[in-house]
Amino acid sequence: MIQIAIMGLGTVGTGVARVVAENSRQIERKLGEPLQVKTILVRHFKDGPYRQLMTDDFKKIEEDDSIRVVVETIGGVGAAYEYTKRALMAGKHVVTANKQLVAEKGCELLALAKKKNVNYLFEASVGGGIPVLHPLTQCMAANRIDEVYGILNGTTNYILTRMVRTGAFFADALREAQAKGYAEADPTADIEGIDAGRKICILADLAFGHQVDPDKVPMEGISKLSLRDVKLAERAGYRIKLLGRAVRLPGGRTAYVAPHLIPEDNPIAGVEDVFNAVVIRGNATGDVMFYGKGAGEMPTASACVADVMEALQASPRREEIGWSPDTDGFEDPAELHTRYYFRIEGSLADAAMSFGQVEVLSEDGETAFLTDRISGLEVQQQAKNLKILACMRVLP
Amino acid sequence: MIQIAIMGLGTVGTGVARVVAENSRQIERKLGEPLQVKTILVRHFKDGPYRQLMTDDFKKIEEDDSIRVVVETIGGVGAAYEYTKRALMAGKHVVTANKQLVAEKGCELLALAKKKNVNYLFEASVGGGIPVLHPLTQCMAANRIDEVYGILNGTTNYILTRMVRTGAFFADALREAQAKGYAEADPTADIEGIDAGRKICILADLAFGHQVDPDKVPMEGISKLSLRDVKLAERAGYRIKLLGRAVRLPGGRTAYVAPHLIPEDNPIAGVEDVFNAVVIRGNATGDVMFYGKGAGEMPTASACVADVMEALQASPRREEIGWSPDTDGFEDPAELHTRYYFRIEGSLADAAMSFGQVEVLSEDGETAFLTDRISGLEVQQQAKNLKILACMRVLP
Repeated sequence: MIQIAIMGLGTVGTGVARVVAENSRQIERKLGEPLQVKTILVRHFKDGPYRQLMTDDFKKIEEDDSIRVVVETIGGVGAAYEYTKRALMAGKHVVTANKQLVAEKGCELLALAKKKNVNYLFEASVGGGIPVLHPLTQCMAANRIDEVYGILNGTTNYILTRMVRTGAFFADALREAQAKGYAEADPTADIEGIDAGRKICILADLAFGHQVDPDKVPMEGISKLSLRDVKLAERAGYRIKLLGRAVRLPGGRTAYVAPHLIPEDNPIAGVEDVFNAVVIRGNATGDVMFYGKGAGEMPTASACVADVMEALQASPRREEIGWSPDTDGFEDPAELHTRYYFRIEGSLADAAMSFGQVEVLSEDGETAFLTDRISGLEVQQQAKNLKILACMRVLP
Repeated sequence: MIQIAIMGLGTVGTGVARVVAENSRQIERKLGEPLQVKTILVRHFKDGPYRQLMTDDFKKIEEDDSIRVVVETIGGVGAAYEYTKRALMAGKHVVTANKQLVAEKGCELLALAKKKNVNYLFEASVGGGIPVLHPLTQCMAANRIDEVYGILNGTTNYILTRMVRTGAFFADALREAQAKGYAEADPTADIEGIDAGRKICILADLAFGHQVDPDKVPMEGISKLSLRDVKLAERAGYRIKLLGRAVRLPGGRTAYVAPHLIPEDNPIAGVEDVFNAVVIRGNATGDVMFYGKGAGEMPTASACVADVMEALQASPRREEIGWSPDTDGFEDPAELHTRYYFRIEGSLADAAMSFGQVEVLSEDGETAFLTDRISGLEVQQQAKNLKILACMRVLP
């Protein structure tokens, strides 16, 4: 019998307890012995099936040598950071779905895990139940990773899907997402691209081997997106999706989050509703895409439990996960060259004055057009006399 | 310096040597020391960059204690089987892309590897460079796997794509695939579903934990597929794809390969050209899809090299890969219930006589229709008086 603890009993924490119970046969067959949740750390006791496992005293976990793995589902940095450090110091493996903590403190926590000869694993922090980080670090280990991009946030993808399908305005689609439980009462982290931003930081850390400072990563959400752009893009054969994107550059790397126009024959253009998808470009494999439900109690929890099993089986620890704390070489995404979509208050002549020849999508009081491939820096210079209503990158 | 050997210097073997050389920096960073190909087993010496590494004597590998991993890219069962056994007996890890050998002898070779405390890894045998087997066995380890299906053969998917896009007949599309190097001079294993069949056996072995005997798996290819069915299906909102499919049944499991009608809003319906995609349905994750180039020198080779790295890092060995030799519980796929597509020489009345109410797709001398959900056994009985021109399952 292998004992584990869960810290936090929200959606993911409850899911972890459920997966351990409901899939006990599968888990025991693979581990060779049963897995059991012994202790659950909560702030406030509440009735329910796990009442007798609850404690509000972290020491009950920290000092219990029979607990070999701790699943942290508290979220945020404060208590989660503190308890993760102490659990690792106590020689326990730690598994988490906490993308904020991994994005901000992952490098430090991995170094501590290494020092204590235990694992710190976080497959569930990106893509929920979709395997992404293990395939990236393990199955694609013989590749130079050149780019990673993806639809990393299900809430915003649901809102965009509703806008496209029903012609709903952003605010209405957001209310619908909230009514369905896909968006939180305060949806800021989702719709402003912050959640996707944390995930692209983790992907960039692992893909390029250097810490990416989340504060340096430009994060733009979909709250300013207009239905008009969605329709114009669709008419021209593009879908608009909020992408996190990390790119290897000649002397370094960059990462950012922003809405993009995606050609409709790119498989990621067809990813709808709350589904997520991540594309990883290896120099040997080419583009590989991972697709599925990026959130939800059971998918995310099952990824945590798989990491628990992995932590127990990797003896003494998985070596290939980790990255350098050195943040040098991170460049502004304005260095990247792509095509740009513009909608301006003005005429085609105004557009041509700034960008030379462009591909016109609409001339109707406003003018919508696509530029040639240019850098973000050139955009800033050349567009400075335009009255810009919308500006987005086009995925190559 | 870690030394490895390659057996066979065809497309994949050459790719392995290239990946080891071209991505040496990435590999060394992850392994902590350089990786080097020391010996390559060939049948006939030939000039080229690897001339000085070649031997035609397997003992040069078998008896060389400095060689820790052997990559088998010979293919088939004969020599590949013999040398794999001997390499494992000699205490070396073995990595392969050889789906025939894994499908037929994998269970036995894994047992031998376990006995000798080494790894036998074969990520590249399914999906080429797309991570599929590791995610299935590792990242989704906390799931009960209920179904796996996929486009597992790039050659047939290319032919089908050409038929849909250009209206080419099967024979012409096949010739085009051969001209482009996507299909071999003898294309039997691809177009008759045998290659996809071996892969679905491996997926079923790992997903359900029991050996699936390839001889018991019905394999139907695309050589009898008519352009007329492709067009009728498309008009009704379906794409035809050759799928390998493995399903958990109440008391057991089944697996088979056959062309299917797939609703066009299923992401796998949009998988075109030589791309592969595999969908894995876990009871916690729901459907997860893996997509990318399923073949080719560099993608497949990079998966082999990742397995080499994995074999060296998993100390002493990865425990979670393996399955029972017990083949009991394998059932005929005719047990499955699905909708069926029929094209018959006859009228709608004939169709209704056999199946009651059906969904008519075409009445034009011939009649094309979709049945309700029925079992393959019912199909055999109810359709026995019909003049069947085409009959395919519809993916739910």
